[in-house]
Amino acid sequence: MKLLRSIESAFPIIEWGRTYSKQMFAEDGVAAVIVTIMLIPQSLAYAMLAGLPPEVGLYASILPLILYAVFGTSRTLAVGPVAVVSLMTATATAAIAAPGTIGYLETAIALAFLSGLFLLFMGVFRLGFIANFLSHPVISGFITASGLLIAFSQLKHILGVQTTGHTLPEQTVSMVSQLDLVNIPTVIIGSASIVLLFSIRNYMKAALIKAGLGARAADLVVKAGPIMVVVLTTVSTYFFGLADKGVTIVGAVPTGLPGLSVPGISFDLAADLAAAALLISLIGFVESVSVAQTLAAKRRQRIRPNQELVALGASNIASAVSGGYPVTGGFARSVVNFDAGAVTPAAGALTAIGIALATLFLTPLLYFLPKATLAATIIIAVLTLVKVEPIIATWRYSKRDFSAMAATILLTLLVGVEAGIAAGVILSFVLFMHRTTIPHFAIVGLVPGTEHFRNVLRHDVETADNLLTIRIDESLYFANMRFLEDKIYDLALGCPKIRHVVLMCPAVNNIDASALEGLEAMNHRLQDAGITMHLSEVKGPVMDRLQTTSFLDDLTGDVFLSQYQAWKMLANPAK
Amino acid sequence: MKLLRSIESAFPIIEWGRTYSKQMFAEDGVAAVIVTIMLIPQSLAYAMLAGLPPEVGLYASILPLILYAVFGTSRTLAVGPVAVVSLMTATATAAIAAPGTIGYLETAIALAFLSGLFLLFMGVFRLGFIANFLSHPVISGFITASGLLIAFSQLKHILGVQTTGHTLPEQTVSMVSQLDLVNIPTVIIGSASIVLLFSIRNYMKAALIKAGLGARAADLVVKAGPIMVVVLTTVSTYFFGLADKGVTIVGAVPTGLPGLSVPGISFDLAADLAAAALLISLIGFVESVSVAQTLAAKRRQRIRPNQELVALGASNIASAVSGGYPVTGGFARSVVNFDAGAVTPAAGALTAIGIALATLFLTPLLYFLPKATLAATIIIAVLTLVKVEPIIATWRYSKRDFSAMAATILLTLLVGVEAGIAAGVILSFVLFMHRTTIPHFAIVGLVPGTEHFRNVLRHDVETADNLLTIRIDESLYFANMRFLEDKIYDLALGCPKIRHVVLMCPAVNNIDASALEGLEAMNHRLQDAGITMHLSEVKGPVMDRLQTTSFLDDLTGDVFLSQYQAWKMLANPAK
Repeated sequence: MKLLRSIESAFPIIEWGRTYSKQMFAEDGVAAVIVTIMLIPQSLAYAMLAGLPPEVGLYASILPLILYAVFGTSRTLAVGPVAVVSLMTATATAAIAAPGTIGYLETAIALAFLSGLFLLFMGVFRLGFIANFLSHPVISGFITASGLLIAFSQLKHILGVQTTGHTLPEQTVSMVSQLDLVNIPTVIIGSASIVLLFSIRNYMKAALIKAGLGARAADLVVKAGPIMVVVLTTVSTYFFGLADKGVTIVGAVPTGLPGLSVPGISFDLAADLAAAALLISLIGFVESVSVAQTLAAKRRQRIRPNQELVALGASNIASAVSGGYPVTGGFARSVVNFDAGAVTPAAGALTAIGIALATLFLTPLLYFLPKATLAATIIIAVLTLVKVEPIIATWRYSKRDFSAMAATILLTLLVGVEAGIAAGVILSFVLFMHRTTIPHFAIVGLVPGTEHFRNVLRHDVETADNLLTIRIDESLYFANMRFLEDKIYDLALGCPKIRHVVLMCPAVNNIDASALEGLEAMNHRLQDAGITMHLSEVKGPVMDRLQTTSFLDDLTGDVFLSQYQAWKMLANPAK
Repeated sequence: MKLLRSIESAFPIIEWGRTYSKQMFAEDGVAAVIVTIMLIPQSLAYAMLAGLPPEVGLYASILPLILYAVFGTSRTLAVGPVAVVSLMTATATAAIAAPGTIGYLETAIALAFLSGLFLLFMGVFRLGFIANFLSHPVISGFITASGLLIAFSQLKHILGVQTTGHTLPEQTVSMVSQLDLVNIPTVIIGSASIVLLFSIRNYMKAALIKAGLGARAADLVVKAGPIMVVVLTTVSTYFFGLADKGVTIVGAVPTGLPGLSVPGISFDLAADLAAAALLISLIGFVESVSVAQTLAAKRRQRIRPNQELVALGASNIASAVSGGYPVTGGFARSVVNFDAGAVTPAAGALTAIGIALATLFLTPLLYFLPKATLAATIIIAVLTLVKVEPIIATWRYSKRDFSAMAATILLTLLVGVEAGIAAGVILSFVLFMHRTTIPHFAIVGLVPGTEHFRNVLRHDVETADNLLTIRIDESLYFANMRFLEDKIYDLALGCPKIRHVVLMCPAVNNIDASALEGLEAMNHRLQDAGITMHLSEVKGPVMDRLQTTSFLDDLTGDVFLSQYQAWKMLANPAK
């Protein structure tokens, strides 16, 4: 029974598959058609963004979707190539191999494989908590900076020039130096695509409804917008012979499904790609789970983050095995899938069939597709990633968080994606570590006429010259104990009249071995200085553990049940 | 005035120097003589342990002591070469250069320089908190393992063989393979030294007092024990011509003070040594501050840890500049200094003069000193580092802490000092990070007949089907927010009857930008699931900051002053 339940929990498909019906199949089918139409140009475009041949984007949209359907806990997440991960793939891969070579493709495939292994490992060992150390400001800063970087990197395709470099300054210099090589037909195709895509996305729906179309039909037309622009520009390029006038086209795309093979990865390559693979895994996971949770809540469904790691791991390994590159759950695509009425992950599997059919039959039609059109698709898609409002909100709310965010944005733009995210994480970490080393505590005194004790800085309370009472508001452990020790030595040894130190522990849930040694040392050192150390209001479980040690025997003072008892016994309020 | 105070705080010598008297000078002088007598053989021995010529140990005991006297906040800490740091120096240096070469000496000097820079940097930027991440179990395990490793490494000098390797297995294999080369005269000298040193340390004092000597005089004789053994074995070696019979002797030690020069360190060398230098700095600092605090408390004096970083940094740079190797505050030596009546750091400066005189006039007398005697001095000194009791105590108190300790001990012995300490720190860190990602919280219910709310798991309380109340016992920030979110989705979305979630926040002192976004997302997602989110008992300062955001406007529910008000308003106790 228990085994059965854990098998079910490892294969969520068993749960929803059991009650799958024709009705659900019909709903999933409709969603799959809509997502497929949206995914074809996106797959091609994101593969181009990653510096890879267009078919690699299609391959990454077949097998991974089927694996996610088997392992994923989200009913509506749409997995596949996404913009930010494509950018990260381009950066990491270009550091190892020259774009356009076989080595480049092999490196990107290895990256998907490694990042799949990382995800799987984290899922199996329940290490998803590692992703918690990517704070919101760091992620949000990173996504915004990536959006800008991606949009800017696509300008070269719109202008028809060849730029080099990954950072904003490198790309700008390279672009400016080639302004005289701009190809006018390419600029026309590119700009027209941008204007069309932008108009369809923002004005088409209202216009169609005004013209008498139903809201749902109008919606469908809007979603087919990118594929219409693809068709339009491809046909124009063919008819006007624009390829001969300098417009770069996609060219021959191999027909047929990808072959399956486990990529061979040398230890050196794995070592070189490890950091990038880990970052891609974490960023992909965080973004994907966030989308999945947002959509799941709308239908009161639940997401299991550790199982999501397994599902994304399996998807990435599947992508690598079938000649694809790193994938994750995409935001826009998942929302479309959800809105189109997908009820189970079967919609994803059906989408995979749609893409497989496209790979089998449609690729010859892509020959004259201009790269400028794909670039326009990317630009319109990623501009939604760039958000100024969270930057302002973070600045207003917390300067500490803002500094981590600003470091992430600036370094991502100026040095690169990995440097940006590393700077943000390290800065959050240092700020966080610094804070964890300072435990919350307060010197307290008696509220006159009561048995309550409050912070001497905030309340008008009675204190005694011979008695120092510290209320500790947190568990004590290796990282924060030394700060407390130093503070108490400062306070107690600095005032010659003090004879007793009472540690009031109502909020101490745990004392680790380091903190215990710290307390023991403090007891001895205070004793050497002629000061007695007491405890008060120690919680039951903490007291139980202390009783297994010799600490309570060595304690120079007493353990009081209430701070008021300690006060009555020890205080000498005469000033 | 403020400037003056900060100058005084940077140069503690100004404070104690102002009231320095003849009486204090006399007391410091006596202590200095005793420490000098103890330090001469120790300096030679620890230099040998570090694989360096004996004079390097003396050089490291002159200038560093003077710099510490200027910058240190401890009145009685005795700085100089110590066993554990010597071992770490040997390991780090041997990884770069072959022992006995000029390159080896230059590398050890560079290590002192780098570790001085690290300490100074941490002191100036008040980064001493970094050392808090070395937990007690890791440090104590590391010291014990180092003691064993050091004692074992000296056996070769007692046996008169040449072994290679740094780890316990390497050394054992190497020693066993050379057992037929053991030199009998060396074994006799070495064993006799060990027996003598051990007897003097443990039995001499009682015997002398029994024989009618005063306790203080007896104590002095015991402290002079190592130097007496040095004289005895040196004289024996000379008279019996043992050097010709295979006893390895110290040989010619250069006479005169060291020349001063800033060591030239290439960027490559600095990069290779950085990790080792950082570890040496941190271990040295932690041990030194611990000794300093123990002694300071006995006289109700105060230690400023960040200033100690500066003082130890200056001492190490001084050591490097004067041809010495890494130094720190030594435990045994500082206790002797304290017991001998040192009242100010001037005692350290006077000790430096004593060692300088020895360097000028005594080095020719060291020619026939057998290395086996120095090895015996080291073995007797480091065996006090090996403590089994803390290992047992940690095992009893916390399995989590014990696992970090055991990893440190095993890896230090089997792989090396750096691997050992790294494993311990990483393991403590992972355990710590994992814990920080899980905030303390409890589902609470109403204690019948009161207005109090308590944990439903521990108390018999009233709950309501339509209401989930979570008491959060900790501040919310990026590392722990996601866990809370996931938990609440699990709890709230899993029970179809729940209509309200109340977050009870009496212990939430801070909400960072990530946690705020988490709360916002939770509010929206619960809303999508038809659940209203409320807060109760929010602290004043937290409320003030929330009011600067749009969170409270968007909140689907209310903010209640007390949880009881929330209960009266929302609960539907009919089951």
